[in-house]
Amino acid sequence: MAQKPSIPKGTRDFSPIEMARRNYIFDTIREVFKLYGFKQIETPAMENLSTLMGKYGEEGDKLLFKILNSGDFLRGADKALVENDDYVHLTSQICEKGLRYDLTVPFARYVVQHRNELQFPFKRFQIQPVWRADRPQKGRYREFYQCDADIVGSDSLVNEIELLQLVDEVFSRLKINITIKLNNRKVLAGIAELIGAPEKIIDITVAIDKIDKIGIDNVNAELRERGLSDEAIVTLQPILAIDGSISERLEQLESLLATSEIGALGVKELREVVSGVEVLGLRATLDLDVSLARGLNYYTGTIIEVKAQDVVIGSITGGGRYDNLTGVFGLSGVSGVGISFGADRIYDVLNALDLYPDEAKDSTRVMFVNFGVAEAGTSMKMLKELRNAGIAAEIYPDAAKMKKQMGYADALAIPFVAIVGETEMTQNKMMLKNMVTGEQSLVSVEEAIEIIKK
Amino acid sequence: MAQKPSIPKGTRDFSPIEMARRNYIFDTIREVFKLYGFKQIETPAMENLSTLMGKYGEEGDKLLFKILNSGDFLRGADKALVENDDYVHLTSQICEKGLRYDLTVPFARYVVQHRNELQFPFKRFQIQPVWRADRPQKGRYREFYQCDADIVGSDSLVNEIELLQLVDEVFSRLKINITIKLNNRKVLAGIAELIGAPEKIIDITVAIDKIDKIGIDNVNAELRERGLSDEAIVTLQPILAIDGSISERLEQLESLLATSEIGALGVKELREVVSGVEVLGLRATLDLDVSLARGLNYYTGTIIEVKAQDVVIGSITGGGRYDNLTGVFGLSGVSGVGISFGADRIYDVLNALDLYPDEAKDSTRVMFVNFGVAEAGTSMKMLKELRNAGIAAEIYPDAAKMKKQMGYADALAIPFVAIVGETEMTQNKMMLKNMVTGEQSLVSVEEAIEIIKK
Repeated sequence: MAQKPSIPKGTRDFSPIEMARRNYIFDTIREVFKLYGFKQIETPAMENLSTLMGKYGEEGDKLLFKILNSGDFLRGADKALVENDDYVHLTSQICEKGLRYDLTVPFARYVVQHRNELQFPFKRFQIQPVWRADRPQKGRYREFYQCDADIVGSDSLVNEIELLQLVDEVFSRLKINITIKLNNRKVLAGIAELIGAPEKIIDITVAIDKIDKIGIDNVNAELRERGLSDEAIVTLQPILAIDGSISERLEQLESLLATSEIGALGVKELREVVSGVEVLGLRATLDLDVSLARGLNYYTGTIIEVKAQDVVIGSITGGGRYDNLTGVFGLSGVSGVGISFGADRIYDVLNALDLYPDEAKDSTRVMFVNFGVAEAGTSMKMLKELRNAGIAAEIYPDAAKMKKQMGYADALAIPFVAIVGETEMTQNKMMLKNMVTGEQSLVSVEEAIEIIKK
Repeated sequence: MAQKPSIPKGTRDFSPIEMARRNYIFDTIREVFKLYGFKQIETPAMENLSTLMGKYGEEGDKLLFKILNSGDFLRGADKALVENDDYVHLTSQICEKGLRYDLTVPFARYVVQHRNELQFPFKRFQIQPVWRADRPQKGRYREFYQCDADIVGSDSLVNEIELLQLVDEVFSRLKINITIKLNNRKVLAGIAELIGAPEKIIDITVAIDKIDKIGIDNVNAELRERGLSDEAIVTLQPILAIDGSISERLEQLESLLATSEIGALGVKELREVVSGVEVLGLRATLDLDVSLARGLNYYTGTIIEVKAQDVVIGSITGGGRYDNLTGVFGLSGVSGVGISFGADRIYDVLNALDLYPDEAKDSTRVMFVNFGVAEAGTSMKMLKELRNAGIAAEIYPDAAKMKKQMGYADALAIPFVAIVGETEMTQNKMMLKNMVTGEQSLVSVEEAIEIIKK
């Protein structure tokens, strides 16, 4: 009967130490979200498939986890689909619900569904897991958390400036040195206009993105392969070559895109955002990256991406402005801008740089040794007083061998052990042992509280 | 193209106000769990169906949400099952995973899978949603949170005493007056032994449970209907009639069950637990209830149930001792005791009694009015200083009409509004308005911090 238990591939158990570290990240992000006036919402793990399908492209539809209808799911299903092995159409007949794939589509659904209760601009944050039936690999999971903050119902660039400060504050608290890369979708549109190939904009950004890795010649070869005319490639060269400080690069970009109305607007927006955050002061390094696209079809203005400086890892945060979040659900004209923190990658960065504070260890502060019923009785009274003073404390539940009990305290890195034997009982005191220094002293509860709280 | 969006029945969106209230409950429980030395874990939303199936009875198997295998799920499935409408067997061929139904089975799986990394006794807590394909009705959802704390690997009654104190502390912090009902599975076994009908123990407890509602005569009639002999019913009468204080009732029970070894042991355990918590002092009312069973097949010792005193609602917390949590996964001899807080019911109690503290409202403290680029620039500098002082603050992102901006602050119950117009800019001050009293004064950032923090 006994099974050897395991969990589905791509999913994880989180042990107490991992939880303490993850909570440290989530708590930090949550606290900054609140400091910036964002309000938390939660949406169900399951959404109707009609809400999810078609929102993430054909590939995304395949990566949705679908939930089998309860009861006799075959009733009403077209059995000919089974005969024809048409599992795709059969799916839509036997599954009505799916697990959320990200927090953006559920948020858009939420905004439309609750629009009459909401106050716009609506500043929401959401920290919940999402699920993707992706092939699991190192750093890619089938269940992972997203931490999103969005402002919808306002097209002011003040929101971009706020979000960049928020990102700066989160990583400053986490002690991670970051570079924030900026771009603007309108600049990309301007470039496409300039070279007369608006339909090639994705090919262009994909190629440009590789400059550092493969060099300008290979990028140009790739652009040719992707069907760009020689003329277009020539026109693109000065854009690929822009250089210098952010303001120098903005200047070059401005003159290069002067003939494109949308391109010029993009440069103007970038300028406003950059000068806005620079006036307020940013600890992060700011960078302008015209190859930055991040899901181009989605963003319409500012595009943001964050990388850690001291460890090689993909982007740890990203976001941008979108003009039509809720259009697909029948509510148009809702512009917004948002940011998404990648908790798993941030976790990896903190691990790699060993940046967890002691508090993130989060353990019990004192353990009482258990010598039997009478001693445990006295210990539990003292225990209660320690807890009333806010000290996380426990008693070893069994009167096991001393060695075993001390081993438990040791393994859990509990910093103090309290010993209440016969002698201590008569004096109503405890022998308090510091597990790090080995020091011990006979103290009252009040004295113990003072020592432990120090 | 536009869809009218909705969410699956039995699921819920949580708005910012609901989130603040729920977080107040979860934070309170989490803090007390930690104070008592419990360590947090999390397990995946999806478990293998082989882990979940057969653990909750036949009915439970039906209530599991099953996840359709990715890709061509029909490959390898027996199509004859479709022809025969045998959806039950087909399910096991097209679904490998399901959503967790509770936190107990995943915890048992976790303990077995990670047993070599764990320190026993292992005190874990877990706060996560679970999913059940139940028929939705008032107060019953298809997605809801469980908050569980368990100690496994120790059969000491110290654990029971600790858990009862923990329950007392949680509800004391939440300001909910509670009654804790206690029973012991061994007492029930003793009663069954006494009346010579061990297989009737469930029928007996179900009937006894109705005494208050339907009276002793109807209970006896029901027992007869359920197949109890007249002799057995006669033997049961003194047990149904036990009365008085807890210690009086324990005494009566002791003499009634004196001939049953297991029954006597149950009474002894109850005595130890009751006197253990009474010595330490309990704010809750303690009650002995021999009809308390709570999933009898599962518990083997102490059984605990908590009810709110000031509002009529089902049990808001429950738990007990089990002897063989992990046997089904091949690890026997792991005894444990646990408690589960019903967050949704606690939420309903707090709402009914209006017991939420102001902090649970959790809103932004100050909003800066936006008069345009220059003023917003100065405002954002002040805003940054307020946030550096730990004050949750925001700026209205658009230079909208004053009325609209004030309406926003009002709707979100933001207690202070800061106005930085031309005059204020030149003085580097803000006009700070208290939205409750209507008072306003021209103050520096430092003064504002002091006023808002008061």
